[in-house]
Parts: sequence; C-alpha cells; structure tokens
Amino acid sequence: MTTDKPSITVLGLGAMGTALAGALLSAGHPVTVWNRTAAKADALVARGAARAASPAEAVAASPVVVACLLDYDSVRDVLGAGHLQGRTLVNLTNGTPGQAREFAEWAACQGTDYLDGGIMAVPPMIGTPAAFVLYSGSRAAFDRARPALDVFGESVYLGEDVGRAALTDIALLTGMYGMIAGVLQSLALATSDGAPATDFAPLLTRWLQAMGGWAEAAAKQFDSRDYATGVVSNLGMQAASFDNLHRTADEQGVSSELLAPLGRLMRQRAADGHGHEDLTGIIDDLRKDNA
Amino acid sequence: MTTDKPSITVLGLGAMGTALAGALLSAGHPVTVWNRTAAKADALVARGAARAASPAEAVAASPVVVACLLDYDSVRDVLGAGHLQGRTLVNLTNGTPGQAREFAEWAACQGTDYLDGGIMAVPPMIGTPAAFVLYSGSRAAFDRARPALDVFGESVYLGEDVGRAALTDIALLTGMYGMIAGVLQSLALATSDGAPATDFAPLLTRWLQAMGGWAEAAAKQFDSRDYATGVVSNLGMQAASFDNLHRTADEQGVSSELLAPLGRLMRQRAADGHGHEDLTGIIDDLRKDNA
Ligand SMILES: NC(=O)c1ccc[n+]([C@@H]2O[C@H](COP(=O)([O-])OP(=O)(O)OC[C@H]3O[C@@H](n4cnc5c(N)ncnc54)[C@H](OP(=O)(O)O)[C@@H]3O)[C@@H](O)[C@H]2O)c1
Ligand SMILES: NC(=O)c1ccc[n+]([C@@H]2O[C@H](COP(=O)([O-])OP(=O)(O)OC[C@H]3O[C@@H](n4cnc5c(N)ncnc54)[C@H](OP(=O)(O)O)[C@@H]3O)[C@@H](O)[C@H]2O)c1
Repeated sequence: MTTDKPSITVLGLGAMGTALAGALLSAGHPVTVWNRTAAKADALVARGAARAASPAEAVAASPVVVACLLDYDSVRDVLGAGHLQGRTLVNLTNGTPGQAREFAEWAACQGTDYLDGGIMAVPPMIGTPAAFVLYSGSRAAFDRARPALDVFGESVYLGEDVGRAALTDIALLTGMYGMIAGVLQSLALATSDGAPATDFAPLLTRWLQAMGGWAEAAAKQFDSRDYATGVVSNLGMQAASFDNLHRTADEQGVSSELLAPLGRLMRQRAADGHGHEDLTGIIDDLRKDNA
Repeated sequence: MTTDKPSITVLGLGAMGTALAGALLSAGHPVTVWNRTAAKADALVARGAARAASPAEAVAASPVVVACLLDYDSVRDVLGAGHLQGRTLVNLTNGTPGQAREFAEWAACQGTDYLDGGIMAVPPMIGTPAAFVLYSGSRAAFDRARPALDVFGESVYLGEDVGRAALTDIALLTGMYGMIAGVLQSLALATSDGAPATDFAPLLTRWLQAMGGWAEAAAKQFDSRDYATGVVSNLGMQAASFDNLHRTADEQGVSSELLAPLGRLMRQRAADGHGHEDLTGIIDDLRKDNA
C-alpha cells in the first residue's frame, strides 16, 4: 500500500485499541500493531495492518506510537525495556494526573516526546463526530501527531501541564459514573414490580435531558459561592424527598446503597443551617481543605 | 373576574405550589389559595387569587383541590380535619408508593376521589412544554381535573394503581440524583486546582449528552438479562479506571465518598466472575430478592 499519510504504531488491542487502529486504517494510515494476546491483531492484519512480534519491533516501525492499555502499570510493563528514543509517545491509557506527570518524567529520560490523553468515547464512537479526545503535555508532540489523532474524533488540547488531560478526563468520567449509578438505581426501582425496563427508560432519558442544564447552572453558582439567591429547590425540601427515595427502595426490596452518601451529605448540610440554599454548596463539603 | 374555566384550590405555596397557582391564574382559572405562612399568598392575591383563611375554607371554595406541601405528614396536618367530602383531591406532594396507597385509603374514607401525582419539573418549568406530571389513581378524578392539570405541563396518566406515579417519580428522581451526585463530584475535581467551574461545565454537559443513550441501552440489556454480548466497556477495565477516580480524588484533596458504593459494587461483581461483562448486571445485585 502506498500512502502519504504518516505511519502509526498502536500498542494494545483491547476494545479501544482495536477501534483506534481500525479508524487509522480506514483513514489510510499505515498501521503497525502489537498486543500481548497476539490473536487480537488478526482482524486488523487482515485489513492491512502490520503485526509486530514485540513492543520493541512495534516502536521501531513508526515515529508516533499510540498506547492504549489497561492502566499505567501495563504501559510500563510493555514499554519498560525502552527503545523509545526519538519517538513521540501518545498515551491514551486511563490514569491519574499524578501518574501522567510521573510518566512524562520517565519518558523525558528516554528521550521521548510525551503527550498524555483521555478518550471521551466508547469504542463504537471512535472516528465519529461524537467522540472527543483530551490531550495535554508536549505541544510539539501534539502538533506532530495531530493528523493521526484527528482521525479518532475532535482533538482537544488542554496545554503543557501534562496532568490536565487526566484530571479533566477523570472529572468527566466521574460525572458519567454518577449518571450511571443513578440509572442503575432508577432501573432497579422501576422494574421492582415486574415492569420491563424498556417501558420506563424513554421517560428517564427525557427527564435527564430536561435536567441537562443542571451542570452549567451549578457551575455558575459554585463560582459565585452564592448558594442562596434565586433558589427553586431548597435543600431542606430535597432532603425530605430524598428520604422518600430510601423509603421507596425499602418498600420495593431494592438496596439504596448507591445513593446513600448524597443523602448523608444533604442531611448534614441542611442540619448545618443551609436548608434554605441550593444543594450546590455540597461541593464545598467535598473539598478536604474546607472540611 | 368571569371565566368558564373551573375554579381550583391550591394548598401549599412553597416554591412549587406558588408556581402551580401562578400557572393556573395565567391560564384564566379562578384560584383559591392557602398557605400556613399566610404572607406567601400575597403576590398571588395581588394577581387575582382568593385567599382562604383556613384549609377548610380553601377546600370549600373549589371542587378540585391541589395539594403541594413538603411531605405526606404535612398534607395530613393540613387536611386531617376532613371537609373533603365530595371533593376531588390531587396530591402533588412527593411521597412513596406505600404512602400514596395509604393516603388513597384515607381519602376514600372521607368520600374523596383521589389522584396521586409526581411533578417532573422544577418550578420555573411549570407551564412550559419541558414539564411533565405523572398521575395515578382514580381515572374519574384525572378526567375531571385534567383541564386544570394540563396547565402545569404534559399530563401522563399511569393507571388506576395509585402507587404507580410515586414509584415512577421516585425512580426518575433517583436517576436525577445520580446525575447530580456525579456533577457535584465532577465540579469538585475539575476546580480542585483552582480552575473556574464555568470553564469546565460545557465539556461536562457535552459528555453527559454524548452518553445520553446509556439508559435505553442498559434497559434493553437488563430486560434480556444478557450482559455479555457485544460488550464495548468491560467491567474489569471499568473497575480499573474507577480506581483512578478514587486515586485522583485523593491526589487532588477531594472526598470520593459520593462514588464509593458504585466502586464497591463494580469490584465485587468483577471479583464474582463478571469482569468480561457490561456493568448493567449490577442491577441484579441491587435487588434484594436476588441477594
Ligand atoms: N472501552 C471503553 O469504553 C473506553 C473508553 C474510554 C477510555 N478507555 C480506556 O482505554 C484503555 C483500554 O480499554 P479497553 O476497553 O481497550 O480495555 P480491554 O478491552 O479490557 O483491553 C485491555 C488491553 O490492555 C492489555 N493489557 C492489560 N494488561 C496488560 C499487561 N500487563 N501487559 C500488556 N498488555 C496488557 C490487554 O492485552 P490482552 O489482550 O493480552 O489482555 C488489552 O490489549 C483503558 O485505559 C480504558 O480506561 C476505554
Ligand atoms: N421545588 C422543586 O424543585 C420540586 C420539584 C418537584 C416536586 N417538588 C415537590 O413539591 C412539594 C413542595 O416543594 P416546594 O419546592 O414547594 O417546597 P418548599 O418551597 O420548601 O415549600 C414547602 C411547603 O410546605 C409547607 N409545609 C411544610 N410543612 C408543613 C406543615 N406541617 N403544615 C402545613 N404546611 C407545611 C410550607 O408552608 P410554609 O410556607 O408555612 O413553610 C410550604 O408551603 C414537595 O413535596 C417537593 O418534593 C418540588
């Protein structure tokens, strides 16, 4: 195959690495792949990817190396032997800001230009406009890798502070896991008398969409630290209806453990004299420096 | 004022009762109001509402009585003295399915036609197409009150089982509180290095919207009880990245208590041999009959 697109190496062919490598192939990039369990490369090789026999061979094949493995420990396992001198490493493995900073230092010692990233998509979204990927770290690495990175989805560069992408990624995932916890609990309740979940779910989707402006309203309130002006759902009332969530779960034989911590924080804050305010002030209680 | 619209009584003028009474006035209904703290009626009276001196007087004024108080205990406090014979009572106070059933029995003893309801809106949404209100209980009461009820938003009648509106309401609120818990935690993390929440919130809104199809996908999976086909985000991988949520919170000095129970359930389920599945199966673990 001849192409003028730069060749890329992808390390890790789990669900996400496979989606990334597949999108690069579709976009016409020469792609070299490696995975610990070699068989996971078969379908990509059938589509034209080159199979590397080792991480070292994979790294040698392309100037830009994308890693998407389970966690930072597995990235170290795979790249520990070195061979990265002069390469641009784009690490799309989920990690913490601290791990990203530590890893950037290690990469610098190897003579490697390092870009940390967080993928905001599930694998089927890769290569569609719904996907976006956060990057931070070396600006030069970002600019060099960008033609390939833009294949995955919208590339959002957050600056040279290498921990920023991980912090933003984790903050977004946190929001998603809250939504997921709520949906799990909601479906458990709605189906507790035998009704199908699919009858109920469209109503839940509609309701979550109707409340979709909450994050931006809460952010405005938090930045002002004024939780008492223009309150439409006061914390005292919300704590009372939150008790009904627990009672209903008990009545229906469903555990309410997923929501218990929010209930505790709401009751505590109402008891602390904030019952007339919006519940946004709970953010202050989550910050340990304010505790 | 002369009008051919039926007159309505509203008991309770908190944020929500005030919005309901205001919407009825705007739609041209004669409205009688009562609130424990009488001054909260002043603005509505200035707009044409009649002020009742007591709950009994309020109930006597209209064939349809809408109650929107803090909780069922306060509804009993207010209506305990009776006077409801021959009235249609629409109770829009938040409660559990069990409370709704108990209250319907009490209302039946008073010779009152009873409709239970759950408002899916915050007060500023009342009277707009974004609001919907769930009803269950007496079909005759629903039909009789409907011209007034449709003023609040879309009226969704869920059948004669009087507990159904409360169960659906609580299940939806549960979903919302999950989202809210996630947003609180997300904003706490994203601002932990001093960045303004309003810089971050649009990204969070975008991400939650991108994941907005999750509830319906999870519902389909749950109804099939097949959590292992077509998995794109396996539980083992998610449990690993969930650990990064906790670690990041620690690194940033933010409590991660809000999300701890989901982390426990994920780890437990992965340890139980479901690491290759989607996390939807956690719903089974929440149902006490399956425990
Ligand atoms: N899937 C998603 O929805 C999603 C979304 C956003 C971000 N991510 C992130 O993307 C990364 C990969 O996720 P995924 O869904 O692809 O996970 P996955 O399907 O479970 O794949 C995990 C990958 O890591 C490899 N691996 C694990 N431990 C290893 C080790 N010690 N040495 C070498 N290779 C090792 C696995 O190799 P084997 O094949 O040999 O086991 C496999 O390639 C994770 O950090 C995840 O948080 C995933
Ligand atoms: N606001 C929302 O976002 C929202 C959304 C959906 C559903 N709801 C539900 O709507 C209902 C009312 O909420 P809200 O926002 O209006 O609450 P609120 O602003 O706190 O008002 C509470 C109302 O209950 C009255 N009340 C409390 N205890 C009473 C008692 N023992 N006897 C007589 N009256 C008593 C209060 O009277 P005083 O004025 O004398 O204190 C006031 O009228 C709740 O069940 C809530 O769950 C609210």
